[in-house]
Amino acid sequence: MADKITPRSTDYSQWYIDIVTQAKLADYSPVKGCMVIRPRGYALWEAIQKVLDGLFKETGHVNAYFPMLIPESFLKKEAEHVEGFSPELAVVTYAGGEKLEEPLVVRPTSETIIWSMYQKWIQSYRDLPLLINQWANVVRWEKRTRLFLRTTEFLWQEGHTAHATAEEAQEETQKMLAVYKRFAEEWMALPVYEGEKSESEKFAGAVKTYSIEAMMQDKKALQAGTSHFLGQNFAKAFDVTFQTKEGGLEHVWATSWGVSTRLIGALIMAHSDDKGLVIPPRLAPTEAVVIPVFRKDNVEGVLTYARQLGADLRQAGLRVELDLDDSSSPGWKFAEWEMVGVPVRVEVGPKDIEKNQVVLVRRDTGEKLFVERGAVTVKIRELLQEIQTQLFQRALDYRTKNTLRVGSYSEFCQLMEGEGGFVQAPWCGSRDCEAHVKEDTKATIRNLPNAFKGLPVEGGCLYCGQEGRHWAIWAKSY
Amino acid sequence: MADKITPRSTDYSQWYIDIVTQAKLADYSPVKGCMVIRPRGYALWEAIQKVLDGLFKETGHVNAYFPMLIPESFLKKEAEHVEGFSPELAVVTYAGGEKLEEPLVVRPTSETIIWSMYQKWIQSYRDLPLLINQWANVVRWEKRTRLFLRTTEFLWQEGHTAHATAEEAQEETQKMLAVYKRFAEEWMALPVYEGEKSESEKFAGAVKTYSIEAMMQDKKALQAGTSHFLGQNFAKAFDVTFQTKEGGLEHVWATSWGVSTRLIGALIMAHSDDKGLVIPPRLAPTEAVVIPVFRKDNVEGVLTYARQLGADLRQAGLRVELDLDDSSSPGWKFAEWEMVGVPVRVEVGPKDIEKNQVVLVRRDTGEKLFVERGAVTVKIRELLQEIQTQLFQRALDYRTKNTLRVGSYSEFCQLMEGEGGFVQAPWCGSRDCEAHVKEDTKATIRNLPNAFKGLPVEGGCLYCGQEGRHWAIWAKSY
Repeated sequence: MADKITPRSTDYSQWYIDIVTQAKLADYSPVKGCMVIRPRGYALWEAIQKVLDGLFKETGHVNAYFPMLIPESFLKKEAEHVEGFSPELAVVTYAGGEKLEEPLVVRPTSETIIWSMYQKWIQSYRDLPLLINQWANVVRWEKRTRLFLRTTEFLWQEGHTAHATAEEAQEETQKMLAVYKRFAEEWMALPVYEGEKSESEKFAGAVKTYSIEAMMQDKKALQAGTSHFLGQNFAKAFDVTFQTKEGGLEHVWATSWGVSTRLIGALIMAHSDDKGLVIPPRLAPTEAVVIPVFRKDNVEGVLTYARQLGADLRQAGLRVELDLDDSSSPGWKFAEWEMVGVPVRVEVGPKDIEKNQVVLVRRDTGEKLFVERGAVTVKIRELLQEIQTQLFQRALDYRTKNTLRVGSYSEFCQLMEGEGGFVQAPWCGSRDCEAHVKEDTKATIRNLPNAFKGLPVEGGCLYCGQEGRHWAIWAKSY
Repeated sequence: MADKITPRSTDYSQWYIDIVTQAKLADYSPVKGCMVIRPRGYALWEAIQKVLDGLFKETGHVNAYFPMLIPESFLKKEAEHVEGFSPELAVVTYAGGEKLEEPLVVRPTSETIIWSMYQKWIQSYRDLPLLINQWANVVRWEKRTRLFLRTTEFLWQEGHTAHATAEEAQEETQKMLAVYKRFAEEWMALPVYEGEKSESEKFAGAVKTYSIEAMMQDKKALQAGTSHFLGQNFAKAFDVTFQTKEGGLEHVWATSWGVSTRLIGALIMAHSDDKGLVIPPRLAPTEAVVIPVFRKDNVEGVLTYARQLGADLRQAGLRVELDLDDSSSPGWKFAEWEMVGVPVRVEVGPKDIEKNQVVLVRRDTGEKLFVERGAVTVKIRELLQEIQTQLFQRALDYRTKNTLRVGSYSEFCQLMEGEGGFVQAPWCGSRDCEAHVKEDTKATIRNLPNAFKGLPVEGGCLYCGQEGRHWAIWAKSY
């Protein structure tokens, strides 16, 4: 921890990068735009994977694995899809010492290769629904990258489902959006608006795209997950038909949905502070760290006490680390463990042993509690739950405070130039209005939140002033 | 299950492919040499991953993720490494619509990219050992491929560790070899010879390579995992040095070790039969399947009973599926579940309900047991353990029966032309002798088993007759 973290208020971007690198979550690699996910960062991904994988399986999905290399011609079968992705493709042209007859692209997403297989696997309504998910790496050649948030290669999961009816596919799209929202709010402690994206922001090849959108501490939006209703677009491109119960032949209906290692960026940006990372306890690889505070005359006694305490906490099922290193000072260690975001610090020193107590320190608030030795497991559990709840509440309060209404478009422009924030404002539904706003302010429609559906739209479109057809959340974004 | 499986005795290769495709473990993809791992196959990989990941973590390793694309120049930094891998590389030459200044290879293995990072991360003896594992996909452009056993893209784990001394790195190499052996024997029910590979079969860039070798049912060997002592080769290539405790500066010592989706091929080949897949219970995604046997007058009663039974078994922690489909006959279902290798079938029909019993059928032996309803959970647990033990014993007996000694080289050649098998025979240590044997018979030295170390080497080299320096296992292999 030789270096300091740039204060959030001084330079938000640098603050974020400082945390990622100082907490050893990720590092720059020698390959342009690609990052290395270091063990502490990967442990967060493992925690995310474990929960999401469980939620996917609970909702009837199974995992599979499809080739990473896709014939270039496959992408061209869906016109919008290839238009959206071709600027970002990495292309293998040589393999095994020879030039390939047809170049292979490294998957930027797997709709095409997967639907080429579904063509073989789906014949009858009995084969539907087909509910498959894949955990994989993908490559999109991005010009401007930022650790976790936008990298050339990233890790993600992509669900690809096939259904007999449009209704069923639409239901699946919403169901997975709800899974993402639940994961964001209950595990990441991150309140999100879930809703439909506008035409100009939808996935290349989708009929409709839905997203969850979260507010970061600089009041920008981060799209944290997407769920797409693909209609029959890919079924038609790959000629995937099925025999209906009634004996007819119809094209299959599709969805796809995904979240990526970008979630780690969201986690960091949403909760951390100038001391480093703050992790919601339910996703923390380590829930508590035990740090003995030595006095020269009592090293062994304190160590023994700390070891026993650590063993007891682990026995009780808590994820605990011990920092018994005697070459650095307690103060240095406190700072180090704050940096990496362990939710609860457990200090034990000679005085605590005498009083048969331990000291608990919350990472999120810095609050110090003196707890009887016998009550420590119960108290830590309580604290973890409290921290989880309060992190969510704090993020929600922050979003509420910074989700504004504006009286006019010029007020909106001023806001976006200055403080920023989410703006809840009506939209007429025109692509042009959205484009003008983006040009003027860099802000876009994040989505049309489900939460605002059915509410009367008060006032005219943010840009043109004509009749507002939807409530939209407008914001600058990552 | 419209198609039949080719009998093992008629055509072993086709038998294997039939099982893989009929049990829906994997499928051919439109990309040459790449396979699709279907949900039932991927579930086996998940089971393997879960156990191995636990064993790696127990032995102090953490996971991380490194870029898949590696600058071509990196591979050239280690002379043997590039020589070994360059014929198999897939190369990205275009990305983001432009020709790349330097081509990027898709990782065939990650030593070079990882050691380029270790150069940044390792400065002092305090940074050692560094014990990192990665779960990832790799690409090796193979000319002849076979589902699971040899595919252009495959999934694997690769451990890459860095140590202060040669001794410690050698110890790690052996430790991970032992982890692989334990996993193969205790989970896969697959007895293996663990030992050193000969010079000509070692990993490109290693000082020494060790492997575990298993016998398949056609008596060929399958290399199921490798562990490499890399000496200082990669540390020197990437200039990775550390300050010693004494203040000196030395190059770091390295190991790497890996197993891949090839293990699924080994699992299939080792235990399956003409009815389909046989899975060792500890790795079976489904341990038991409940199949109601209807009579027209008692459909509801049987269904209710079966559902309750399934719920009870799940409650007890067993991994159970129910097959309640009423459109196919019990006989058809039995065959289907035998095909996919579920270790125990649980049948319940009206007569069983009357007698307050269920019928258990073992997948491995076909043995039928009538068990009292109240004892069913306990009995299934016993059976699963028994099947696990007996599968291992059966494979061990088969290997013992087919590991032979030969009186002469010509006897060896006859054996390899005919029945095949493992041959335990002395080797003088000459690369030439091994090459001659390979040319004559296609058999190679699989390894020099640890189990035979220290035993007196009786007789002369299999090929040249000169003094035997090692006991070797010679066999044809996958």
